[in-house]
Amino acid sequence: MILFQSDYLEGAHPLILERLMQTNMEQTPGYGADDYCKIAADKIRSLCEADKAEVHFMVGGTQSNLTVIGALLRSYQGVICADTGHINVHETGAIEATGHKVLGLPCEDGKLTAAQVKEYYYNHMNDSNREHIVQPGMVYISNPTELGTIYTRMELEALYKVCSQCGLYLFMDGARLGYGLKAPDNDLTMVDIARNCDVFYIGGTKVGALFGEAIVISNPALQKDFRYYMKQRGGMLAKGRLLGLQFDTLFTDDLYFRIAGHAIELAEELRGAFKRKGIAFLVENHTNQLFPVLHDEQIAYLGERFGFSYERRVDECHSAVRFCTSWATKAEDVQTLIEAIENL
Amino acid sequence: MILFQSDYLEGAHPLILERLMQTNMEQTPGYGADDYCKIAADKIRSLCEADKAEVHFMVGGTQSNLTVIGALLRSYQGVICADTGHINVHETGAIEATGHKVLGLPCEDGKLTAAQVKEYYYNHMNDSNREHIVQPGMVYISNPTELGTIYTRMELEALYKVCSQCGLYLFMDGARLGYGLKAPDNDLTMVDIARNCDVFYIGGTKVGALFGEAIVISNPALQKDFRYYMKQRGGMLAKGRLLGLQFDTLFTDDLYFRIAGHAIELAEELRGAFKRKGIAFLVENHTNQLFPVLHDEQIAYLGERFGFSYERRVDECHSAVRFCTSWATKAEDVQTLIEAIENL
Amino acid sequence: MILFQSDYLEGAHPLILERLMQTNMEQTPGYGADDYCKIAADKIRSLCEADKAEVHFMVGGTQSNLTVIGALLRSYQGVICADTGHINVHETGAIEATGHKVLGLPCEDGKLTAAQVKEYYYNHMNDSNREHIVQPGMVYISNPTELGTIYTRMELEALYKVCSQCGLYLFMDGARLGYGLKAPDNDLTMVDIARNCDVFYIGGTKVGALFGEAIVISNPALQKDFRYYMKQRGGMLAKGRLLGLQFDTLFTDDLYFRIAGHAIELAEELRGAFKRKGIAFLVENHTNQLFPVLHDEQIAYLGERFGFSYERRVDECHSAVRFCTSWATKAEDVQTLIEAIENL
Amino acid sequence: MILFQSDYLEGAHPLILERLMQTNMEQTPGYGADDYCKIAADKIRSLCEADKAEVHFMVGGTQSNLTVIGALLRSYQGVICADTGHINVHETGAIEATGHKVLGLPCEDGKLTAAQVKEYYYNHMNDSNREHIVQPGMVYISNPTELGTIYTRMELEALYKVCSQCGLYLFMDGARLGYGLKAPDNDLTMVDIARNCDVFYIGGTKVGALFGEAIVISNPALQKDFRYYMKQRGGMLAKGRLLGLQFDTLFTDDLYFRIAGHAIELAEELRGAFKRKGIAFLVENHTNQLFPVLHDEQIAYLGERFGFSYERRVDECHSAVRFCTSWATKAEDVQTLIEAIENL
Repeated sequence: MILFQSDYLEGAHPLILERLMQTNMEQTPGYGADDYCKIAADKIRSLCEADKAEVHFMVGGTQSNLTVIGALLRSYQGVICADTGHINVHETGAIEATGHKVLGLPCEDGKLTAAQVKEYYYNHMNDSNREHIVQPGMVYISNPTELGTIYTRMELEALYKVCSQCGLYLFMDGARLGYGLKAPDNDLTMVDIARNCDVFYIGGTKVGALFGEAIVISNPALQKDFRYYMKQRGGMLAKGRLLGLQFDTLFTDDLYFRIAGHAIELAEELRGAFKRKGIAFLVENHTNQLFPVLHDEQIAYLGERFGFSYERRVDECHSAVRFCTSWATKAEDVQTLIEAIENL
Repeated sequence: MILFQSDYLEGAHPLILERLMQTNMEQTPGYGADDYCKIAADKIRSLCEADKAEVHFMVGGTQSNLTVIGALLRSYQGVICADTGHINVHETGAIEATGHKVLGLPCEDGKLTAAQVKEYYYNHMNDSNREHIVQPGMVYISNPTELGTIYTRMELEALYKVCSQCGLYLFMDGARLGYGLKAPDNDLTMVDIARNCDVFYIGGTKVGALFGEAIVISNPALQKDFRYYMKQRGGMLAKGRLLGLQFDTLFTDDLYFRIAGHAIELAEELRGAFKRKGIAFLVENHTNQLFPVLHDEQIAYLGERFGFSYERRVDECHSAVRFCTSWATKAEDVQTLIEAIENL
Repeated sequence: MILFQSDYLEGAHPLILERLMQTNMEQTPGYGADDYCKIAADKIRSLCEADKAEVHFMVGGTQSNLTVIGALLRSYQGVICADTGHINVHETGAIEATGHKVLGLPCEDGKLTAAQVKEYYYNHMNDSNREHIVQPGMVYISNPTELGTIYTRMELEALYKVCSQCGLYLFMDGARLGYGLKAPDNDLTMVDIARNCDVFYIGGTKVGALFGEAIVISNPALQKDFRYYMKQRGGMLAKGRLLGLQFDTLFTDDLYFRIAGHAIELAEELRGAFKRKGIAFLVENHTNQLFPVLHDEQIAYLGERFGFSYERRVDECHSAVRFCTSWATKAEDVQTLIEAIENL
Repeated sequence: MILFQSDYLEGAHPLILERLMQTNMEQTPGYGADDYCKIAADKIRSLCEADKAEVHFMVGGTQSNLTVIGALLRSYQGVICADTGHINVHETGAIEATGHKVLGLPCEDGKLTAAQVKEYYYNHMNDSNREHIVQPGMVYISNPTELGTIYTRMELEALYKVCSQCGLYLFMDGARLGYGLKAPDNDLTMVDIARNCDVFYIGGTKVGALFGEAIVISNPALQKDFRYYMKQRGGMLAKGRLLGLQFDTLFTDDLYFRIAGHAIELAEELRGAFKRKGIAFLVENHTNQLFPVLHDEQIAYLGERFGFSYERRVDECHSAVRFCTSWATKAEDVQTLIEAIENL
């Protein structure tokens, strides 16, 4: 079986393991106070051209989401997101467990628009009974989204502008950020993101690291005491250097982008194979997740030799499924899958 | 101005005030340990033919909702309700503040069906990634609903049966219970409700009391330590007898049902007036809330002399509004309103 | 039996009931938006010489405490209080249920000192691992305290000064405020309190009202959106005017202070009787709570005809108990008790 | 500088890194559903002779503590622990953030006794106002404790017996469990622990792993849906196999115990050196943490070449400090330190 069901099937990029080996017996202070974390944070700040940003490292995405959102909101506020947003549907109520309502707005393609946010906000503020309703306090987006779509620079700028006008914080979950930035239709840069988000994170878990997300707090007003929040949520790794080392490696010689680019190339090849076969997609995208809509027989056929994940039934005999490529995907495995697709 | 915008515009039924006067200087133990609370609880148990039920008194509805829901759920569980449910839209995230997601299901008429709940539950349990998703742990309904509709006995029994099969608790918010039970098309009794809900409450605030909701815990497995929950949520009234006295009065000589019946009679008269004028309703019901869909000019005309609440725009020149009657509504005020409707 | 175990044994001052009767059938908007609440708030602002203060009314003390504390703290912060503080020992973890640690400091007499707070704060800030420790974010005091002691103006000013220097908010629970202000050794005024607290509340439940606490937010920075917090915690009373009416009455013609003074006079008489008998007190105070240390036989003898509450064992054959007077205590009942004390 | 301030200064035992290298490009399902986790869980069950125990792997200690405690308690319950307990003083209120009060009891040596727990429980249950007080719902101990002391088998059995009688769950934090089990004065086995705790965890972070704690739920009644809790708290590692692999390695050929034994041997040597110099300890223990009480000059002298952590001032010129050994401590480094001690 060759597995394509997610982008966290393997361990880490070999350079990362090598780095862990080399430094294994060094003695460093705990909880992220070591030099590797400092170096990694500096590289990220430099990449984002954001001198005053704070960078923190956490182990996983749900942990990062609940810590950031819990930190930014006042207790009666909620977080706006796409109804398909990870925090709304795949985190077992982690956000609600911090006391906050997730305000899911309907989105065809996983993306929120500036207009949607603006309308929601003013509907709230103009309601004379608004004190009986959860107040929106921030906007959560992911880029790429759960459906693999990405925001254009214009879209992100418009969203941030509306957020700023409304006093809403904008937070980007970048669990797959590398794959978004390397998409052929992307026009966003790290600098754009840092300028147009209050907080965002750069995903390591799905892009070459064993684990780890680098949280970048661009907005200085939100930086105070963030480490207390991390500790309180159980998210301050004792041997914090493990996170620093991984991000230092990923942001040395563009490794992060090179390996993300590799995944995108293979995804595009795979996408082409599906298209040539006349197979439609649940949603159009050019990142590392593909959502072809397959006939039940096609699913059965491919399922014999390939792993992929089931999304949802589309009609009586078709369902959408998900194939992912990643930094670790082998070109020959994609080739084998393409041949199988051609045989459908 | 004659106000119809809600059913909590006035104080309390005069018999209740009289009772407060008579007993004012009596010395009683605090926090609901007094005899008035015991007597009121006995009357309610007797009315429900539920010897083993526990009865607790709280001041308000949101307080009751958050205390009961917080008590019944495990931390990773959520509560299913109609998307229009009070807990979903009008309690400022009070449920989420106890850590639980509100799982709003789409409902045309404010009512959940047994089939809906069953489908939602099995979809969850059959999902191989269900641990990443909030588990439904209970079902919240209100009767009458936010839209003034009511459950039939068959509907409630079906719902409770599904809940029991799925291990979900069924909780009925009866903030307007009296008005539901006196509706001309109602076939539910207090006994039916006690048998087909794990917990429910009998609303006093909107039906003759100054304030107060009587929570009935029918399911013995849920009775343990409920008073701890009440205290922790700030909902144990120091002079608990004020609640006992009010419910004792309401359940003496059928006062509760007589005054609810008064409101229903006036509501039906008002309903007739709108219908005779050819005015449609957002939703059909026979309880104390009316949701006529009025033209902007009609709204302006009635708004000069009558208070009512705005619900939502229906089309370019029509909006749904809400008129309520209550135990305190005067027949002559309804007559004046009817005349105005006839002049529309 | 004549009961002295608490100061919430009876209903309300007759003038309050009269007011409820007079206004009963008036129609007013809900949730505190009525004129009675506005009038009461104005009277309180005027009394405190605090034009810019916001005044909100809630039903009870625990509710007020959890709402205020939950509103003021960031999630990783805790609230400093005396280890005997009500929030630390008698609210079933209501504060913790909002996510915050109660930081109880040892106090002989129920009072925190400025020096204690300062030391605690700097110990925290000077700890290089402080991010692993709950950060103090505010100070909660009650006046009178749980032990009936009161703060002098100098003490309160010193405390507020330290709090301001440290960025800690100062919050005073005034559930028995009237009894403190009328104590013979008191030198605090409402104006002093408003100037030296960020938030405080004036207790109605124990001083003449059926229920109710008037929360005064002196610090403008803390006023934003407080009504959202109230609603979210289930603490926004539907018929809010009931609270407005009561406080309006209490602050008309000095009623609040006159009835508090009545309780204090009787308490002083009772205190004298114990002293003449050579009976010691657990703690010295001049408010409406007395904590005599009685021999087991004395407890048994008085227990036959009088209600009082048990505090704690002091030695093998003595225990401290509590007697309270209140606005409702009858002079003749105190006389009867004094005679019994003389017979000990 | 040679660092002794903690037992998490280095990476992982070389065998663990080797294992990560070997398996790096394998494809495995995420979130702990892989075979390595199954194998490791089986080894732990076998070691504990606890066929029916459930084993889950989490990244860190605070995360494990808040997830387990949050899962076991009802909302109005608190957790009893030593006042020096990690959850009480070093986790930034992580437990309170899940809504529960930490009930710290005074302990000289970091250990709770059965008698203490029993007394606390019955004091609570015999209080007629107990509903106003946090109910104890479980007992948290750590072994070794924060002070490096350990429980004897008799002590643990007595504690568990009292807990069972009182309906309290017993939870052991074993962040340093290996070092406790290898202490010369230890008489506990893994089997004893599994039989006398409802839940406990085996620390990896401080005993040879890069990170990771293995939670063992012995009590079948507490096993239901634990993975939901893990996910909700952000504690379900995407590449769960990293945890499985590490614990599989640690419990192969007794590695865990062998490397813990190494740390204990070196600690005993160091302890001897301090004793020979007449230096007292804050508390007597035989595990990997030493708390010598040093003169300010001694601290200054040793501080020039060695890292250690500051505990607290003992008198005008002495303070207690902490030295730790670990699986990674080099014999020659201990020798260098011993020589320095001899020169004091």
